[in-house]
Amino acid sequence: MFNIALFGAGRIGQVHAVNIAKHPKTKLYSIIDPYVEGANKLAAEYDAQVQSIEQAMADPNVHAVCICSATHTHADLIELAAQNGKVIFCEKPIDLDISRVRDCLATVRKHSVPMMVGFNRRYDPQFRTIKNQLNAGVVGQPESLVITSRDPSPPPAEYTKVSGGMFRDMTIHDLDMARFIMGEDPVSITAHGSCMVDPAIGEAGDIDTAVLVLNFPSGAIATINNSRRSGYGYDQRIELHGSKGLLQADNVKENLVQNWGDDGCVAAKPQHFFLERYEAAYIAEWQDFVDVLEGQEPECGGADGEFALVLADAALESMKQGKTIKL
Amino acid sequence: MFNIALFGAGRIGQVHAVNIAKHPKTKLYSIIDPYVEGANKLAAEYDAQVQSIEQAMADPNVHAVCICSATHTHADLIELAAQNGKVIFCEKPIDLDISRVRDCLATVRKHSVPMMVGFNRRYDPQFRTIKNQLNAGVVGQPESLVITSRDPSPPPAEYTKVSGGMFRDMTIHDLDMARFIMGEDPVSITAHGSCMVDPAIGEAGDIDTAVLVLNFPSGAIATINNSRRSGYGYDQRIELHGSKGLLQADNVKENLVQNWGDDGCVAAKPQHFFLERYEAAYIAEWQDFVDVLEGQEPECGGADGEFALVLADAALESMKQGKTIKL
Amino acid sequence: MFNIALFGAGRIGQVHAVNIAKHPKTKLYSIIDPYVEGANKLAAEYDAQVQSIEQAMADPNVHAVCICSATHTHADLIELAAQNGKVIFCEKPIDLDISRVRDCLATVRKHSVPMMVGFNRRYDPQFRTIKNQLNAGVVGQPESLVITSRDPSPPPAEYTKVSGGMFRDMTIHDLDMARFIMGEDPVSITAHGSCMVDPAIGEAGDIDTAVLVLNFPSGAIATINNSRRSGYGYDQRIELHGSKGLLQADNVKENLVQNWGDDGCVAAKPQHFFLERYEAAYIAEWQDFVDVLEGQEPECGGADGEFALVLADAALESMKQGKTIKL
Amino acid sequence: MFNIALFGAGRIGQVHAVNIAKHPKTKLYSIIDPYVEGANKLAAEYDAQVQSIEQAMADPNVHAVCICSATHTHADLIELAAQNGKVIFCEKPIDLDISRVRDCLATVRKHSVPMMVGFNRRYDPQFRTIKNQLNAGVVGQPESLVITSRDPSPPPAEYTKVSGGMFRDMTIHDLDMARFIMGEDPVSITAHGSCMVDPAIGEAGDIDTAVLVLNFPSGAIATINNSRRSGYGYDQRIELHGSKGLLQADNVKENLVQNWGDDGCVAAKPQHFFLERYEAAYIAEWQDFVDVLEGQEPECGGADGEFALVLADAALESMKQGKTIKL
Repeated sequence: MFNIALFGAGRIGQVHAVNIAKHPKTKLYSIIDPYVEGANKLAAEYDAQVQSIEQAMADPNVHAVCICSATHTHADLIELAAQNGKVIFCEKPIDLDISRVRDCLATVRKHSVPMMVGFNRRYDPQFRTIKNQLNAGVVGQPESLVITSRDPSPPPAEYTKVSGGMFRDMTIHDLDMARFIMGEDPVSITAHGSCMVDPAIGEAGDIDTAVLVLNFPSGAIATINNSRRSGYGYDQRIELHGSKGLLQADNVKENLVQNWGDDGCVAAKPQHFFLERYEAAYIAEWQDFVDVLEGQEPECGGADGEFALVLADAALESMKQGKTIKL
Repeated sequence: MFNIALFGAGRIGQVHAVNIAKHPKTKLYSIIDPYVEGANKLAAEYDAQVQSIEQAMADPNVHAVCICSATHTHADLIELAAQNGKVIFCEKPIDLDISRVRDCLATVRKHSVPMMVGFNRRYDPQFRTIKNQLNAGVVGQPESLVITSRDPSPPPAEYTKVSGGMFRDMTIHDLDMARFIMGEDPVSITAHGSCMVDPAIGEAGDIDTAVLVLNFPSGAIATINNSRRSGYGYDQRIELHGSKGLLQADNVKENLVQNWGDDGCVAAKPQHFFLERYEAAYIAEWQDFVDVLEGQEPECGGADGEFALVLADAALESMKQGKTIKL
Repeated sequence: MFNIALFGAGRIGQVHAVNIAKHPKTKLYSIIDPYVEGANKLAAEYDAQVQSIEQAMADPNVHAVCICSATHTHADLIELAAQNGKVIFCEKPIDLDISRVRDCLATVRKHSVPMMVGFNRRYDPQFRTIKNQLNAGVVGQPESLVITSRDPSPPPAEYTKVSGGMFRDMTIHDLDMARFIMGEDPVSITAHGSCMVDPAIGEAGDIDTAVLVLNFPSGAIATINNSRRSGYGYDQRIELHGSKGLLQADNVKENLVQNWGDDGCVAAKPQHFFLERYEAAYIAEWQDFVDVLEGQEPECGGADGEFALVLADAALESMKQGKTIKL
Repeated sequence: MFNIALFGAGRIGQVHAVNIAKHPKTKLYSIIDPYVEGANKLAAEYDAQVQSIEQAMADPNVHAVCICSATHTHADLIELAAQNGKVIFCEKPIDLDISRVRDCLATVRKHSVPMMVGFNRRYDPQFRTIKNQLNAGVVGQPESLVITSRDPSPPPAEYTKVSGGMFRDMTIHDLDMARFIMGEDPVSITAHGSCMVDPAIGEAGDIDTAVLVLNFPSGAIATINNSRRSGYGYDQRIELHGSKGLLQADNVKENLVQNWGDDGCVAAKPQHFFLERYEAAYIAEWQDFVDVLEGQEPECGGADGEFALVLADAALESMKQGKTIKL
C-alpha cells in the first residue's frame, strides 16, 4: 500500500482523492492545502490527516505526492518532493515559464525520482483505442490528425490573466495529445487565434478561438480546433487519417437515447465537462501512476510536460508573427 | 420502345408516369381515367393521348398496362388486359376479396400474360441490400425479422371503410416484405390490434395500431409493428437477425446534417412519406417491369399478391378470435 | 453504516460485493456460501468474515441480506431473513414455482420486512432515461413498446433444465421491463418460441428464440424479441412509441471509435455481457437498496417478482396452447 | 425550351448531358468535341446533332453553352460564347492562369452575357442545408469551419503536371465552399502540404496531402483537410461551429444498412466518388442555370471562379514561403 500526500483540495484534487482512495494499492494518507477548511473537510471524508508542506515532505511514511495545487506552486513542490525522494505525480503544467520548467526538471533528474505529468486525456478510453488501433496497423501510417477541443463555456476574463493564456492553459492538452497520437515530435507549428466569444477575454490580451497546425517529420500534419465555448457541452473528438483509412473518436454523450419527434431526431449532448468526460481517464491515469510506483517507467514524464509548453510558447510566437515557427 | 397505357391519373399514377416517361425503353402512350380533367392534364404534360378503357385495350400499339386506378377496378382491368394480351403491371392490391383475386389470376394464367404486382418496397435500395446480404450469407440463417412500419399520420376515418381495413390496406406491404426477406412462406400468423390514434377509426370498425407475428417452417419468427401515426414522419425500418449476426436498415432521413446545441444533437426526421421514401424503389420497380416486358419472369407476380391478401385475411381472423391462425 | 451478509460468492455475488464495499453507507460484513473456498477468498479480499446461514441470520450486527445464491435456495433464505428481521435484497427469481413464491411473500409480509427484488435492468441509465422521458411527457401516451434482448451465446443445454426454461430464466427480465416502462399491468400475453440456436436445448425441452406480445388495458402493445445468441455481443435495446413520437435506447458499445476503411465503417460491438452492460445499473440498484435500508419504499418489491413469474408461466402456457392467455 | 450546345463529351460532359436532357426546359441541342467518335456517340444517345465550335457559336438556335471541355480551352470558349451572346455555363476552372481569367471575365462583362461557374458542391443538399440553417440563425454567428475533402484514390502523377497542382485542381472546390458557407471573403490564407500518398506526385512537383487555414474579417477561421486518397471512398464533410452550436454534414453512405457481427458493427462506405456523391448537386446546379437562363442573377459567377483561383495561388505561395499570405 502506497501512502499518498495530496497537495490541493480543490476540484481536481477531489477527483484524485476519490481515485487514490478507491485504488486497492494506494491510501490517501494526507491532505495539504493553505485553505485549511478545505483540507480538513477532504481529510475527514477519507479518514486522512492534514499536514503542512514541511510535514508531508519530511514524513517517511509518504511514498508519493500528488500535486493538484495552484499552478504557480507546482515547480517548488516538485523540487521539494524530489529532494525528499518522493515519487511525483503532478497535474499539468509544471510551470508557465519554460526556464523554470527546465530548472525544475534538472532537479528531478538530479535526484533520480520518477515523475509523471497529468495529461489525463492520454488515458481516455476513446483516444487510447485510437492509439492502440494505430499501433496495431489498422489505418497504416498516420497522415493527418484533427483534434477538436471545445470547452462548454468560457472562464471569467480574469482567469485568462493568470492562466498563461489559452495556448498554455487549454491548448496544451491538445498539443500533448498530438504528440501522443502521432508518436513523433512536430518540426514546426503555426497558430491562428481570435477573440469571438467574450470581448473581455480579448481586452485581457487573450484569445478564445484558435486553429493550430503542426507539421511532423514524416510529412504528417495535425490540426487543432479550439474554442472556449461550444454551446452544446464539452466537445472532445479526434480523427486520425492514415494511409489505409480513418479512425474517429466521437463525443461521449450523456446517454444513448434518441427521441424522434416533430423537431427531428434528438440525441443527448456530449457530457458536460472534464469531470464527467474524463472520469474513466482519471481512473486509468491513476492506475498508470501506481505502475510507476511499482517501478514502471512513466509513460508521460517531465519531458512531455516540457515539450507541450515549448509548443504552446511557439504557438503564441507564431500567432504574433503571423508565420510558421520551426522547432 | 414499349408503349404503356396508364390507368389512373392520381397520386400513384403520376409517380409511374414520371418513371415511364424517363425510362429509355418505355413511352407513356396513353392515359385512361374517368376523371377526364386529370387525364387530360397528365396527357398534356407527357405528350400522351387520352383513351377510354375500350380504346386502350383494343389498341394494338399498347404493349402493356400500368394499373393505378381505384382498387375496386383492378381485377376487371387485369382481366381485360389479359384477354387482350397486354403485359400487366398492377398496383397492390389485386382486389380486397380473395375469391375475386383467385378468379382474376385464373384468367391471367389462362391467357398466359406476364403480370407483375407493385409491392414497391421490395425494390427499396435499403431493404434490397438486406436481402442481398442475407443471400450472400452475411448473417447466416434468418431467425428473427422485425419490420417497423408507421405512417406519418392517419387517413380520414372515412377512408378506412373503403380500404378493406388496416391489414389489407397498410400491413399488406409488410406481410409481403416478410415473405420477400425470409424467402419462405409462413405457416401461421397471430395479430393484435387496437385503436389508439383516432377514435373515429375505431368507430368505423378498424384499428390503427397493430403487432403481427408470423411463424415460418424453419422456426424463424417475424414481427410487424404498425401504426397509422408516427409523430416524426414515415418510419420504415427492417431488422433481420440471423445465426451469425444482425442486419439493420435504418430510416432514410431528410438530410444528414446534425445540429449540436442547447437541446442536444438534432438530426433530421425520416423522409415524410412514401413518395419521398420510395422514390428510388419506384424507379427500380419500373426497371424490373421493363425486364418483364423483355421476357424475364416477374419477381413479384399474381401469386404474391394473392398470398399477401391471404395473410391479411388470416391476420384479421386471428385478431377477432384471439388465437394463432394456421395457414 | 449498514452491515450486509452476502449469500453466494459466485459471479453475481462478486458484482454485489464490489458495490457493497464501495458504497459509503454499506459494509460487506460477512459471506455465506456452501463452497467454502469461494467464501474464504471473497471474504479475504474485502476483509469480511465467513459465516454459516444460521450465524448470519442470528447475528444482530447483520442489518440486511443480499441473496445471490443458487435459485432453489432463494425462497428459504428470504423466509429466514424475514423471520430474523433482516432487510432483504434478493436476486431474481424468488423461486421458479409460483405457489412457493406466494408462500414466501406471505411470510415476508407477515414479518413486515422490506424486500427488494433485483431486476437490475430497471436501473440501467439508458432505460431509466426512457422511463423518465416518458414520465416527462416527451412522447405522450405509450402505444407500442419493443424490447430487444439477446444474449451473446447460449448457456449449456444442461443449464436450461435447472433454469426453469428460457421464459422464467431470461425473458423474465424483459417481462418486468415491459411492466416497468409501461406503468401498467398487461391483460394478456401471447408467446412464440422455437429452437434455432442449439438442438440440444430443444432436446432438453426448451427454446432459444422467442417473440412475446403483451397487451395492456390502454390498448398499448409490447413485443419482446429474444434469442440465446446474438453473434455480436449482448443486444439490449428498447423502443417506445407514443402518441407524440419515439424513444430509442441503443446498445452501449465497447467504445465510440469508428474505423473507415476498405470494408466500410466499422464501429465496436455492444458490450459483451451483463457484467459490463449493466455495471452502472448494479451500482444504481445498490443505491436504491440503501435508500430502502434508510426507510424508502422498495421500487421493485416482492409483488414485482411474483408478477414477472406469473407472466413467464402464462407465456409458457400460451406457447403450448398456441393462443393468447388472458391474465 | 432552351437549346444547349454541350462542349466536351467526356465524363463530366456526360453528367450534364443527362441533366440537360431530363430537364423539361432545356434541350441537348448539339455536342462539340474534337474527339469525333465520342461526340457522335453522345449525340446519338440524346438525339442531338454534332457541331463544330464555329457552327455552334454561329447557330442562332443555340441559347446557351455548357463548357465541359479540357481546362485549357475554357477561357477561349467563354470569350467566343460571350461574343456570340450565348449564356454561359462553364465547369471550373475558368483557367489556371489568373491573368487569363481576368481578361476572359473582362470580355464577358463587355458583352453583358450571364455566366455561371460550375462549383457543383454549392448545390449539394447536405451543404446547402448547412448554409440554410446558418442563414436561419440556427447556430448564431459562424466562428469556425472545418472542411474535410479527400478523394478515394490519387490521379496518375502525369495528371498533376497538367492540372495546375493540387490547390488549383482539387482544393479550389473547398476554397469556394469556404467562401460560400462563411458568406465573407478571407483576409489571409496559410497552406501546408506534403507528399505522402505517391512519391511520383512529389517528383512531379506536387503534393497530395494538405491543410489550409483561412482567416476571415470577423475573426472566424476555416480549415481545409485534403488528401488525394482516403482508403474508404469519397470523404466530403463539413462542420460549422457558431456562437450557438455546431452543424455537421456527414458523408453520404452507399446504403443505410448496418451489419452487427463478430467484427463489430459495419456500415457502408461513403459513396465512391463525385459522380455518385454529387449526383443530386449536379441536378440542382442545372436547375439554377435554368433560372439564370430565365433571367435570375447567377449565384456563382465569374468573380467566384476568379476568387477561388486567387486563393489557390495564394495557398501555393504560402506553402512555398512558410508564412501566412495576406489577401
